[in-house]
Amino acid sequence: MHRGYYWSRPQWVTERTIVSERKPGPGEYMAAEIAEQPGRLARIAEARDGVVEVARAIADRPPRFALLAARGSSDHAALYAKYLIEVLLGLPAGLVSPSTTTLYEARPDLREVLLVSVSQSGGSPDLVEVTAAARERGARTVAVSNTADSPLHGVAELAVDIGAGPEQAVAATKTYTATLLTLYLLVDAIRGGTGEHVHDIGKLAEQALERSDGDVSRAIDRYRFVDRIITSGRGYSYATALEASLKLAETSYLAARAYSGADLLHGPVAAVDEDTAVLAVTSAGKGGRAMHDVLGAVADRGADVLAIGSAAESVPAALRIGLPETAEEVAPILEVLPVQRIALGLALARGGDPDRPRGLRKVTRTR
Amino acid sequence: MHRGYYWSRPQWVTERTIVSERKPGPGEYMAAEIAEQPGRLARIAEARDGVVEVARAIADRPPRFALLAARGSSDHAALYAKYLIEVLLGLPAGLVSPSTTTLYEARPDLREVLLVSVSQSGGSPDLVEVTAAARERGARTVAVSNTADSPLHGVAELAVDIGAGPEQAVAATKTYTATLLTLYLLVDAIRGGTGEHVHDIGKLAEQALERSDGDVSRAIDRYRFVDRIITSGRGYSYATALEASLKLAETSYLAARAYSGADLLHGPVAAVDEDTAVLAVTSAGKGGRAMHDVLGAVADRGADVLAIGSAAESVPAALRIGLPETAEEVAPILEVLPVQRIALGLALARGGDPDRPRGLRKVTRTR
Repeated sequence: MHRGYYWSRPQWVTERTIVSERKPGPGEYMAAEIAEQPGRLARIAEARDGVVEVARAIADRPPRFALLAARGSSDHAALYAKYLIEVLLGLPAGLVSPSTTTLYEARPDLREVLLVSVSQSGGSPDLVEVTAAARERGARTVAVSNTADSPLHGVAELAVDIGAGPEQAVAATKTYTATLLTLYLLVDAIRGGTGEHVHDIGKLAEQALERSDGDVSRAIDRYRFVDRIITSGRGYSYATALEASLKLAETSYLAARAYSGADLLHGPVAAVDEDTAVLAVTSAGKGGRAMHDVLGAVADRGADVLAIGSAAESVPAALRIGLPETAEEVAPILEVLPVQRIALGLALARGGDPDRPRGLRKVTRTR
Repeated sequence: MHRGYYWSRPQWVTERTIVSERKPGPGEYMAAEIAEQPGRLARIAEARDGVVEVARAIADRPPRFALLAARGSSDHAALYAKYLIEVLLGLPAGLVSPSTTTLYEARPDLREVLLVSVSQSGGSPDLVEVTAAARERGARTVAVSNTADSPLHGVAELAVDIGAGPEQAVAATKTYTATLLTLYLLVDAIRGGTGEHVHDIGKLAEQALERSDGDVSRAIDRYRFVDRIITSGRGYSYATALEASLKLAETSYLAARAYSGADLLHGPVAAVDEDTAVLAVTSAGKGGRAMHDVLGAVADRGADVLAIGSAAESVPAALRIGLPETAEEVAPILEVLPVQRIALGLALARGGDPDRPRGLRKVTRTR
């Protein structure tokens, strides 16, 4: 499963193309998984029984504090969940630094703590160790992963499958949005919600991909030769800014850097100039509105702004990619879709293959 | 005081240069504050009575969770404190996302929670709001700042002055190390420690600055034209990597990006190539040892490694800046010293003035 099998023939190829055993073209896996998302998201939103069961088990003995453990893209999904937990559940929450457990062997008192471990593969040894140690110290533990029989599911008390299906691409796309949606459904169900804000998420995702088609092509053209790019968002959408920056770094080898809107104004805006592209996430709602000052400051400095989100049309920008409007807390599920396509398109335009990042075999993955 | 007064004549100029009213040269304030650190650190370590008093008040009613609130450089100091709290106190800890309070008005139950708010100026309105709201919700609140009569000190139950003296430079240097040391003394005193690992911190800082002199010049020469730089560290030293990346971005306008060693191997290492400089923090201890895999992976990809830390001599690198060895948990106080000098030197070499970042007057600071 997953990254380990990445060189083998992906399942969707066997299903759809009987006759050819051809080698997939550059970015083909990534493109296919981006396109799969509306269908996957629709099914996840429909089939929320498993999530509701886990949510009830948690709500029966309410925690006082939440911790989230993750790496890479999942860490951005965890940050999104941190906002959900603080705002929707009114629980203080923090992201785990796995090394305090794995390197320094910290063993804090974790009674009344809920630990949510997020890992697409469910195989990261450090997350497995963090989860097992937290359970020993009294935490309630929930594994959120794409692999039902993973080591992470094995050590956690409760487990949720994100249902993204087999992942062949190296860059996480459908597993990221499936994780966001699953975490939203989980938090919403803990407070007794019915997932009403995501009933149509599959359709909205489809619209988001269709509607942004031309603008995505324009963005790829425009940023073909970009050197300096920063990404920014506030509130729930800060997770999107972080994921955008990682996706651009992983696939297009861009030195992209993410800032929360507030942190950007706190100093690093000095590094923004006419040669800087700023990918700004601006959805309808409080986080998007709080980006207006940020956009003013970067515009004053001559930056080239690419605004993405349901409120993109209302901000000054060189290029805007509009998206369907949703409740603010679920907007990150849609915001990342055009970003994934831009990352893929830029990687290809710059001569790369996001399905075969250079030097992959030399990479020690912390699984 | 502070940034607001940045154009005015700094106090140390009045004290030392009676005759001249000359305008200070580029980076002069930053250079002076970097040089001040050994003396400041020595005095902070000696005069720990105020910190001990606050620590006793905390230890009398031990919290079950810790939260840390900060922005910019202080956020990196807060991350350092998070590791200290988890490892040395065995308390789960998390960094606050201020926007959950300020934008989304989350009001979680914070009984048995210790909130540590870190702000050099003590004037950030969002941190003042977060601290006041947390206190209302039952948290014990401690302000850690450089301004004893600041609004932050006003709203918090307990307050610690970092004692860094007036700050004139825009880039935080002495206030960063003073904050690290104060947070270490606080956490150490909560567990009943006597600050033994930092008794000599002033002398060690002096040695660190002297010993690294030639290597810092070589680093400035070597990276004069660098475009791509990433910084990396693990454990306690991850805070140093983050601070290094911010300092380079703020002063030299470099698109520097920080990764924890583990996250770097998780994917972004694909963006590392022969044109990438990697500033790797490698101190003696568990965090530094865990960097060996990271250094192997980036060396395989042809990166130009600058190793900084007390274990720098033992790793493969293009350039090494050694530092005096300390207990691992206080190494970040020294690690950042050569980094500050490199940031200053690169800014000047590239024609900038770190004391007058471009477009400063257009910057809205979140005070």
